[in-house]
Amino acid sequence: MTRAERELAEGALFTDQYQLSMAQLYFREGLHERRAKFDYTFRSYPDYGRHQAGYCVFAGLADLLDWMTTTRFTATDLDRLRSQRNSVDRPVFGDDFLGWLEAHGRFDTVDLAAVPEGRVVHPYAPIATAEGPLAIAQILETSLLNHLNYPTLVATKASRVAEAARGGAVLEFGMRRGPGTGANAGARAALVGGARFTSNVGTSHVVGVPPKGTHAHSMVQLFMAIGGGELEAFRAYARTYPDDCILLVDTIDTLDSGIPNAITVFRELAAAGHQPRGIRLDSGDLAHLAVRAARMLDDAGFTETTIVVSSSLDELAIWQILSQIEDEAPRYGVDPDVLTRRLTYGVGTRLITSQGHSFLDGVYKLVAVGADGGWVPAIKVSESREKVPIPGDKRVWRVADHRGSATADVVGSGDQAIAPGTALRLHHPYRESVSRVLAAEDVADVEELVVPALTAGEVLADRSLEAARAWRNLDLERLDPGVRRLVNPHTYHVSLTDEVKLLQDELVEAALRSAT
Amino acid sequence: MTRAERELAEGALFTDQYQLSMAQLYFREGLHERRAKFDYTFRSYPDYGRHQAGYCVFAGLADLLDWMTTTRFTATDLDRLRSQRNSVDRPVFGDDFLGWLEAHGRFDTVDLAAVPEGRVVHPYAPIATAEGPLAIAQILETSLLNHLNYPTLVATKASRVAEAARGGAVLEFGMRRGPGTGANAGARAALVGGARFTSNVGTSHVVGVPPKGTHAHSMVQLFMAIGGGELEAFRAYARTYPDDCILLVDTIDTLDSGIPNAITVFRELAAAGHQPRGIRLDSGDLAHLAVRAARMLDDAGFTETTIVVSSSLDELAIWQILSQIEDEAPRYGVDPDVLTRRLTYGVGTRLITSQGHSFLDGVYKLVAVGADGGWVPAIKVSESREKVPIPGDKRVWRVADHRGSATADVVGSGDQAIAPGTALRLHHPYRESVSRVLAAEDVADVEELVVPALTAGEVLADRSLEAARAWRNLDLERLDPGVRRLVNPHTYHVSLTDEVKLLQDELVEAALRSAT
Repeated sequence: MTRAERELAEGALFTDQYQLSMAQLYFREGLHERRAKFDYTFRSYPDYGRHQAGYCVFAGLADLLDWMTTTRFTATDLDRLRSQRNSVDRPVFGDDFLGWLEAHGRFDTVDLAAVPEGRVVHPYAPIATAEGPLAIAQILETSLLNHLNYPTLVATKASRVAEAARGGAVLEFGMRRGPGTGANAGARAALVGGARFTSNVGTSHVVGVPPKGTHAHSMVQLFMAIGGGELEAFRAYARTYPDDCILLVDTIDTLDSGIPNAITVFRELAAAGHQPRGIRLDSGDLAHLAVRAARMLDDAGFTETTIVVSSSLDELAIWQILSQIEDEAPRYGVDPDVLTRRLTYGVGTRLITSQGHSFLDGVYKLVAVGADGGWVPAIKVSESREKVPIPGDKRVWRVADHRGSATADVVGSGDQAIAPGTALRLHHPYRESVSRVLAAEDVADVEELVVPALTAGEVLADRSLEAARAWRNLDLERLDPGVRRLVNPHTYHVSLTDEVKLLQDELVEAALRSAT
Repeated sequence: MTRAERELAEGALFTDQYQLSMAQLYFREGLHERRAKFDYTFRSYPDYGRHQAGYCVFAGLADLLDWMTTTRFTATDLDRLRSQRNSVDRPVFGDDFLGWLEAHGRFDTVDLAAVPEGRVVHPYAPIATAEGPLAIAQILETSLLNHLNYPTLVATKASRVAEAARGGAVLEFGMRRGPGTGANAGARAALVGGARFTSNVGTSHVVGVPPKGTHAHSMVQLFMAIGGGELEAFRAYARTYPDDCILLVDTIDTLDSGIPNAITVFRELAAAGHQPRGIRLDSGDLAHLAVRAARMLDDAGFTETTIVVSSSLDELAIWQILSQIEDEAPRYGVDPDVLTRRLTYGVGTRLITSQGHSFLDGVYKLVAVGADGGWVPAIKVSESREKVPIPGDKRVWRVADHRGSATADVVGSGDQAIAPGTALRLHHPYRESVSRVLAAEDVADVEELVVPALTAGEVLADRSLEAARAWRNLDLERLDPGVRRLVNPHTYHVSLTDEVKLLQDELVEAALRSAT
């Protein structure tokens, strides 16, 4: 796409056709400026097959807010819509509707409340609520879902990878296999979720984190092709980057060529007063090679150099590497804990594409329509009870026990309040007749989760990466270790109050009665 | 991201840090303007778990060419690079290198040869070859891989979905779960690979295909919430779109409410002289509901209306639906073939995210360096023989038998030619000592696959969607049905000529000797 085409495809037309069809219908029926409330929720944690997430990390809000506050229907957009023909070759959109879009087609007229970016989130409880003129809030659906689903998926994966790495730095390397320009949103989401740095240069500069990366196999290949060899390539690298020398040692043979040549160059660097930084392993049995590399580097006196491992890593691969190191390192006289602290992880494809589970099933559902200054709840019935939205104007709280551990997310009605120190009767979000009482001592602290993010065109949310990272770290600390487990995690409880449960039941019954 | 941030992140800095590190090193070593040749290949077909691709459809070339011909290092880019600090707080990039980038940092100085977009491609055989100044061709790597890997993945999936649909129209619906702005590249790739339309409005206008979509559950919910019901919602839709009336019938109850209400509205439309278009089923047992819906629509005299099915579809789900219809339709007096021809498929999440296998493992490898007007081949050794690149300047042919069926893709050296009607000795691309002879009669036709796409700044490739779709259709016709099979496909042969095989063996041996 050319730049002009990209602007067209990423602006107000970054939506599904049916949103515009419905918006025009609302306009024709005089409903387009009616206040409407839509909830963003997801239904299930990513399940990667052999391993499953027990929580998600919310990401994408900053980009969504940027989009909402800078996007409106342009003259070009309207010309394109005007050109659309229907099945009897007449215009799909009328000048009446397009005229209204020209005057009112901007997304900062929708108010957004949301969980702050970086926070831990769970299924069923609303993560964001959009409230605004029906036609605009409807058109917003696709962009909102697009801006939140994928980043939350990647931030969640990044958080798991970072947990597996036990404090070791995770570098996001996935741009080359990432989904087009979505790789930039993916890189930022990875940084929110637990990656310390990314190799993505542009995104690093946008978010204010230095990009990371050294050299590829091609550099060594090049020196070989022009009559030199790996050692000459490493020396050239050390000449150019004497204080940042990390060498990729597996272009020819890791143990017989790469590491010995790296050590030779490290000695030359050290003699010249520079501190060698480390090596990178990108193929083979990474755990075994890391142990052998540590032994060789230690023997040469380079005990402080980092060892970067990369190649098809994800949370299970890292877990396996660290387990193998615990087992194998002592046999080579290497302290496994010391080696583990020295590792850095380059994680690419499997992070940015969330390999194993490539989507978050987030949805955006109409839950209420404005009437007489209040809200009329809206419902959708489904054969699957878990797909029935939680209707009406609502509030969402996170409840914590006296130790500060999160015990449940609670969805209540908009006029409810939850008082700390009071027992709560709670209902399962979709299983009939499953309820429980949360004892008063488990309701030591109550915190509202969904808070104003965009109000009357003004952004109230903190859009910085630092804020999102701080939330992620804080929320993870307050999460039960069983919920954080990489495989078969405990189920975190999301529950409905009596009021919300009753409303949902009544509306479903009324809708089904209307069908007969 | 704001617009300025997006331009920064999608321009020349849409690359990995190590590309820039290497480029500066090449500059310092006086190697930056040396001619270099890099091949783009992938190593394995997507394997979705229970089902596997036997071929891929190449996509993304048009967008890559747009990017290459419009992107250069801007003053903003250079300022950002100038600001980067290394581990001892000194500039990472020097003014000498940045000055060169300012003067020469544009990507249309790289010549690109490639397989035409939309063509069927296979592992190991180069799909694209970039040739240009070493520093620039190196920096290009990330963007090239990003622009080609993801679209090829999605076009491949789309082709499989379209095959499963047996001629029924496939609509791409995945934007909401798609990867950020990458959803636009995904939508276009789906259109290349076999989707007839997309719901993505902006991308539809960019590629010149009308966007498709009708209404969501929210429209029915809205009318219910304001005191009307499903019938009122459907009537409003018919009022606004009398000639394009497709109604979503599962908001309350498909058989007891949705379809009867749709039929009521269709009768009203027909009485007013309009042709009702159809219904959409978005939940439940889609095959069963499609049969029941066909029965009800037929009985009401609406035998021509389409039935759109959607909800978690992919190639296996569609296959299953059609199998179940064959079994179940006769029991309701419905002709399964007639019903199958009446179906349209809305395919979203699983197509745009290639659920089951979320990445194509495409790589970009240095294969030759210019010297004395010719090419010196470059090699990389690996413990896994399938990861050893095919070195040197090369050509790629598709060989067909006398029926016009493709029998093999052959990788030869740049100065080779293959004559039709001559037997060929061929080697497996990575298995040692596996060779075969392709008989003269199986070499009836020989076609060069990788052809000039960008030469001296001029785009020679056809960037239109129509051209890509034509190639896809033509190549599929010429592909063995066993290779096209959705599950356990036959293996298509990609082979090396004697010359290429010998060169690879010699270079690997020489590299390994250098390690001792």
